[in-house]
Amino acid sequence: MQGERRMATITPSRRVRRTPFSDGVEAAGVKAYTVYNHMLLPTMFESLEADAAHLKQNVQVWDVSCERQVSVRGPDALRLMRMVSPRDMGRMADDQCYYVPITDHRGGMLNDPVAIKLAQDHYWLSLADGDLLQFLLGIAVALGLEVEIEEPDVSPLAIQGPKADELMARVFGDVVRGIRFFRYKRVRFEDREFVVARSGWSKQGGFEIYVEGAEYGMPLWNRLMAAGEDLNVRAGCPNNIERIESGLLGYGSDMTRENTPYEAGLGRFCNSPDDFIGKTALAEQARNGPPRQIRPMVIDGEIGPCTRAWPLLAGGRRVGQIASAVFSPEFGVNVAIGMVDRSHWDPGTVIEVETEHGMRRATVQERFWR
Amino acid sequence: MQGERRMATITPSRRVRRTPFSDGVEAAGVKAYTVYNHMLLPTMFESLEADAAHLKQNVQVWDVSCERQVSVRGPDALRLMRMVSPRDMGRMADDQCYYVPITDHRGGMLNDPVAIKLAQDHYWLSLADGDLLQFLLGIAVALGLEVEIEEPDVSPLAIQGPKADELMARVFGDVVRGIRFFRYKRVRFEDREFVVARSGWSKQGGFEIYVEGAEYGMPLWNRLMAAGEDLNVRAGCPNNIERIESGLLGYGSDMTRENTPYEAGLGRFCNSPDDFIGKTALAEQARNGPPRQIRPMVIDGEIGPCTRAWPLLAGGRRVGQIASAVFSPEFGVNVAIGMVDRSHWDPGTVIEVETEHGMRRATVQERFWR
Repeated sequence: MQGERRMATITPSRRVRRTPFSDGVEAAGVKAYTVYNHMLLPTMFESLEADAAHLKQNVQVWDVSCERQVSVRGPDALRLMRMVSPRDMGRMADDQCYYVPITDHRGGMLNDPVAIKLAQDHYWLSLADGDLLQFLLGIAVALGLEVEIEEPDVSPLAIQGPKADELMARVFGDVVRGIRFFRYKRVRFEDREFVVARSGWSKQGGFEIYVEGAEYGMPLWNRLMAAGEDLNVRAGCPNNIERIESGLLGYGSDMTRENTPYEAGLGRFCNSPDDFIGKTALAEQARNGPPRQIRPMVIDGEIGPCTRAWPLLAGGRRVGQIASAVFSPEFGVNVAIGMVDRSHWDPGTVIEVETEHGMRRATVQERFWR
Repeated sequence: MQGERRMATITPSRRVRRTPFSDGVEAAGVKAYTVYNHMLLPTMFESLEADAAHLKQNVQVWDVSCERQVSVRGPDALRLMRMVSPRDMGRMADDQCYYVPITDHRGGMLNDPVAIKLAQDHYWLSLADGDLLQFLLGIAVALGLEVEIEEPDVSPLAIQGPKADELMARVFGDVVRGIRFFRYKRVRFEDREFVVARSGWSKQGGFEIYVEGAEYGMPLWNRLMAAGEDLNVRAGCPNNIERIESGLLGYGSDMTRENTPYEAGLGRFCNSPDDFIGKTALAEQARNGPPRQIRPMVIDGEIGPCTRAWPLLAGGRRVGQIASAVFSPEFGVNVAIGMVDRSHWDPGTVIEVETEHGMRRATVQERFWR
């Protein structure tokens, strides 16, 4: 049945939105998609294994338009950001990007966007999968805040891989080489300026270009492909092997509203002196740590695709779950991301995991693979 | 390229959630899906045409688990509902379902759920595609309302088609025959009671069963399939041909946050005496009507799948768009749903439409086909 579902195709519609780069993605022979923020997100071109191997040695252009932006702009923009951000917005530099796990009043995670400070009164939140715009809008409407909350025509394009700097420099000039991690610069493309940040959902290095104006999508795509021919540039996408090896969490898979930032291992991002939403609820975990937490895991034996949370069992008792798992050709094991109870989260602990294809042995690791 | 994308498969993950009925849907040979509220929604089994023809003569069981519920419960539940609902909640009967186009402060639509009154202090909102939960949560958190806002373990299963009453009566008893349109009764299944409403996203008649408890999913699915064998029951899904013929709008396709309820032709649902969010912004359209509105359209010639908004052009000027279009074997024309400017919305008006496959002739119709 697994197979049958994986053979099922996506029905095109306006609601499941195409992106400014979809024509390029299709021409490059995309083989699989997911849907993310009501938009198409490529998941595979050649194969997960071949895509990962290529990413680690070359440079790829990723259509991550589905990282939709929420624009928060107006006199009350900072006030609203202080309400929803567990990080100290006061410390944010003018050219900085902040990874901010947004929580509800109980400390449950609603999203984990990257916030970009465009001006004192203007921020973008680059979203994980979920309509966080509606949470911000609800707060702003209820309090009558002087702030515009919109989804602008901005589609991120990620340039990832060890040759990313070289490719970017050829298109935008050497200025991009000077962009620091999670900082941005505004660089020229044709008659526009784009925000370019050193960031991206891999640990192979690279950039995210916040392409403002759908009409610039394919011209930029084509320019990058032409400029990178001798760098063996290819269309790529976030790779499920590389991101699990790297310990990059997927909101909705590895953590949900059921989890706090501390459970997701993101406690270091909760340092705001302001009374952000959820602060009181999180105080106890801030002091004593969470009852469960994200852990790197290795699963023995053959496993199929992880399409639901796999229970972790110790003596028949549920002690957590695994929601991301895949075989890593580089490390020769099934790499996985688990949410494990304190009683079983120490490195070396062996736990039973109930996969869709039978019981397997899972072992808590000391660290992720990079 | 169109074709290439339609051949691309969906990558399974926990984030794109399976449903309590997914095993049954896969066993029935689902051929295509969409993703709706972070969940799999089947879109085709045999073919769009064959599925539509079968629906119109028999009875189908639809996995519409993706109509996720937002549970609004607590002393302030009605207060919050009055804030967000353009319909007069005071008039809502205890067993009633209300179609409510929810708007932001500018009158832009955020969702168009069906609200179900479970108790004076407990409502479910059965969502179209979008995390309206976050809007309600934002309001509740900002105002400190005494209300719990959760997504319960409730997965709607729709029974649609002319033989729906007979099939439902066989499984739940004749009590279901007495359920009026957009009213509900609580009916027994095994050791549970489910809310069963006469509703559903077709005009072939039928019910929606709000299955509370994922573990009851496949037992109910199997019971219905067994009970309906001689009724020629089949696994089905919302059908894009039947729903366009019927003028059933898809939020995210036919209307978005850019549109008001009046533009969507839903003005009759905006009758609340309360100061609901957006009421002031909508006052002018309430008086004078909207500048554009949903219209049934017929498009001449061959058309491919409608995967983006097709501009409507009159003398080179944009006068609207079409976001849903498909060939109807029953009516022998391409049926479509347009959003058309006042200047061109009169029945019989002929407009040019720019499809992905060339310019076509579109004609505004008097009414939808049923």
